[in-house]
Amino acid sequence: MATLPSVSYSITVRLELDGHGTAVGSLTNAVEHVGGVITALDVAAAGHERIRIDVTCAARDTDHAQSIVDALGALEGVVVHKVSDRTFLMHLGGKIEMQSKVSLRNRDELSMAYTPGVARVSQAIAANPEDARRLTIKRNSVAVVTDGSAVLGLGNVGPEAAMPVMEGKAALFKRFADIDAWPIALDTQDVDEIVRTVQVLAPGFGGINLEDISAPRCFEVEERLRELVDIPVFHDDQHGTAIVVLAALKNALRVVEKDLSEVRIAMSGAGAAGTAILKLLMHAGAKDVIVCDIHGAVHEGRDGLDSNLGWIAANTNPAGYSGDLKGAVAGADVFIGVSAPNVLGGADIAEMNEGAIIFALANPDPEVDPEVAHLHASVVATGRSDYPNQINNVLVFPGFFRGLLDSQSHKVDADMMVAAAKALADVVTGDEIGPHYIIPSVFHTDLAQQVASAVRNVVVREQAGRGAAGR
Amino acid sequence: MATLPSVSYSITVRLELDGHGTAVGSLTNAVEHVGGVITALDVAAAGHERIRIDVTCAARDTDHAQSIVDALGALEGVVVHKVSDRTFLMHLGGKIEMQSKVSLRNRDELSMAYTPGVARVSQAIAANPEDARRLTIKRNSVAVVTDGSAVLGLGNVGPEAAMPVMEGKAALFKRFADIDAWPIALDTQDVDEIVRTVQVLAPGFGGINLEDISAPRCFEVEERLRELVDIPVFHDDQHGTAIVVLAALKNALRVVEKDLSEVRIAMSGAGAAGTAILKLLMHAGAKDVIVCDIHGAVHEGRDGLDSNLGWIAANTNPAGYSGDLKGAVAGADVFIGVSAPNVLGGADIAEMNEGAIIFALANPDPEVDPEVAHLHASVVATGRSDYPNQINNVLVFPGFFRGLLDSQSHKVDADMMVAAAKALADVVTGDEIGPHYIIPSVFHTDLAQQVASAVRNVVVREQAGRGAAGR
Repeated sequence: MATLPSVSYSITVRLELDGHGTAVGSLTNAVEHVGGVITALDVAAAGHERIRIDVTCAARDTDHAQSIVDALGALEGVVVHKVSDRTFLMHLGGKIEMQSKVSLRNRDELSMAYTPGVARVSQAIAANPEDARRLTIKRNSVAVVTDGSAVLGLGNVGPEAAMPVMEGKAALFKRFADIDAWPIALDTQDVDEIVRTVQVLAPGFGGINLEDISAPRCFEVEERLRELVDIPVFHDDQHGTAIVVLAALKNALRVVEKDLSEVRIAMSGAGAAGTAILKLLMHAGAKDVIVCDIHGAVHEGRDGLDSNLGWIAANTNPAGYSGDLKGAVAGADVFIGVSAPNVLGGADIAEMNEGAIIFALANPDPEVDPEVAHLHASVVATGRSDYPNQINNVLVFPGFFRGLLDSQSHKVDADMMVAAAKALADVVTGDEIGPHYIIPSVFHTDLAQQVASAVRNVVVREQAGRGAAGR
Repeated sequence: MATLPSVSYSITVRLELDGHGTAVGSLTNAVEHVGGVITALDVAAAGHERIRIDVTCAARDTDHAQSIVDALGALEGVVVHKVSDRTFLMHLGGKIEMQSKVSLRNRDELSMAYTPGVARVSQAIAANPEDARRLTIKRNSVAVVTDGSAVLGLGNVGPEAAMPVMEGKAALFKRFADIDAWPIALDTQDVDEIVRTVQVLAPGFGGINLEDISAPRCFEVEERLRELVDIPVFHDDQHGTAIVVLAALKNALRVVEKDLSEVRIAMSGAGAAGTAILKLLMHAGAKDVIVCDIHGAVHEGRDGLDSNLGWIAANTNPAGYSGDLKGAVAGADVFIGVSAPNVLGGADIAEMNEGAIIFALANPDPEVDPEVAHLHASVVATGRSDYPNQINNVLVFPGFFRGLLDSQSHKVDADMMVAAAKALADVVTGDEIGPHYIIPSVFHTDLAQQVASAVRNVVVREQAGRGAAGR
């Protein structure tokens, strides 16, 4: 499980070479010697005396990048001029922008898009507020809201530092589902204030995507907002993850020919993602689950359970197992980890039932080394892009919101999530499915449309049902 | 001052004509007969029997549009099929969108714009928060914030109905100054809540443009926010208007060869715009001003003055004039109205000094008929686009924010506004200036750049001064 050089740590080094001396080939050797990978080599200017070359290489991390620069500078006749970090270059000035969809070339166009023409549109919406979904950006817009308290694996970095992640998320919304998302990074971590702020800014948006808000506050924020606003509220860290896990698990169970209602599932992690996964699996039919956290199995006899753990204890682990994670994993069919690196070893996986399924989702270092797990399990999935079966939220949230916006849904519920998981699982056909392909690539064509269609169908069915019930 | 047909009330009528009978010319006659103006006539399909034609015409208002449709339908052999409103068509689905500036074609690009690469950018900002202005959209973004309480002349229509105006404003920011503005329409009209909400959502933005918030709440909202956030806060209805008025007045005074510090100014209106205009004119050197509201002149002896009127009484009208508006206008050099239609007549303007300047800015109907005013005054300006000298905020706010963002200003002050007004006035050259051209068109090239440059210079000078003072 060695970390490989990645373009996400990619640098471009501008060098000046002695025209007579150093061969260009020695550059490649020098970079490879310290474990770097050259991905591009551009001659920027060549004269009689000196050659200027831009060398782009992938590194493992910041220290590794520095060692590559040092190795290049140590070559005879080579001068290092400028080192640019491709990831930082890509972020200069931010990753997103606002564009006008209407042309404003002349007075006539101004008078329709702005005053005085716009006044009639405002009056129409004042008379019929539902028209906002037809005549404003509310039809297609999502607020990506964070308080910066649990950003990626970085922790509580605050709202400014969360912005690059939120902008990236907005860019993904557009790329995969043509949704206009705008990041809102909040300068508060108080639950009441987050809830009230989102409620107050909701009128201009068609949906709210909560992002990187730490547990347990995220549960309360989401629950209260769902009561208060009439647009769908979705915490991607919880439900996006849960939907992808359910989809992947459905297909993994097809591979090993087992049924969700009959398998024993051991989980590690009872935070935001873990709790959401648990609830969605149970909604989809899972019956035999034991959840462990850092103190071992969650069971009704355990002291000091908060309301979340109390719910888990009351609804899982009917036999009241009170041991540790390794004991829970022994004899289980499925292990799902959303916790910490290396909590299990090969010997633990060997104790699981025949045809074991391992979802080791801690990032970047999984709960068990996936290569070791493979020696004993039938299907292994991780959160990493450099192994097969990556559990990645990008597979779901764009299409999920596409479906919500298209159907003008006022809410999100578990039936929509189960339908989205089924649609995602079904993208992998019977011909394709196998231990190394239980979940499609994020670049799979029509993925978002299939998820969107499944969500839309549930919303329409529920709206029709509500209409009938009201009669 | 008859209202003329305008494209902002433009309709497209789809007609089917008898192929043998009705001449197309009769359509034009019919529309003109009821006072409409045909701006386009497209034959959509022509067969032997029937011709289908789309007739686009400008109308005065909704009733007039209907009378045009009726006149067309009354023609023999003509069937009216569909009537579309061009302004509404332009608003379908909203006027703005979000675009990604980075390409997300493959895994490598994903890994730089999103996880794992984005984590390093977040860490860099966490270590040095000022980097947010370099590595995120904060460098170029403005929140356009409203509570929907005073939208155009429509009044308190609420946040949803305010959105088309805010989207239009965002589109103008982009069109004229390449700024990424996003509308935030708030579901509260409580001053404390507006202030706290804007403060909480400020980290992701480089500036705040308050819009269409009613007086007197707008004063307190702006004043408190300026203390609380470290990005510039600008209420366009106040300061945008004030800057354009100052610029136009500078040039009008050049035309009549008078000096700002010596003229007597009578104002009608002490609301948000009136108060901001007054303060900026005084900051720029005006000394002799009388402000009137619906109860007559504001003076220190008047009862029931609120804090805003109290400030006006203490700082204007040194002679304590206590009469009505007409009396204040008699003998004045300049009249500035931001109040109500038709409060003055030609006889009142005739009582003003030689070389009178009239800014009658009530919209759509000015304080005095501009054609009548012209009989007695040297320079007349209004807020209307169908007369010369239109006082239009679009002349200022894009360039003003461009200057603030480029200089990474943390605030807005009166010196920046005076500099912006001077830059705007100077766009009109000595060769061009005249009674009918005291202010450039919004489409004048480089207008925004000149305003931006003036603002930037003030910010840089102030930053240097603060640096020096701190030593």
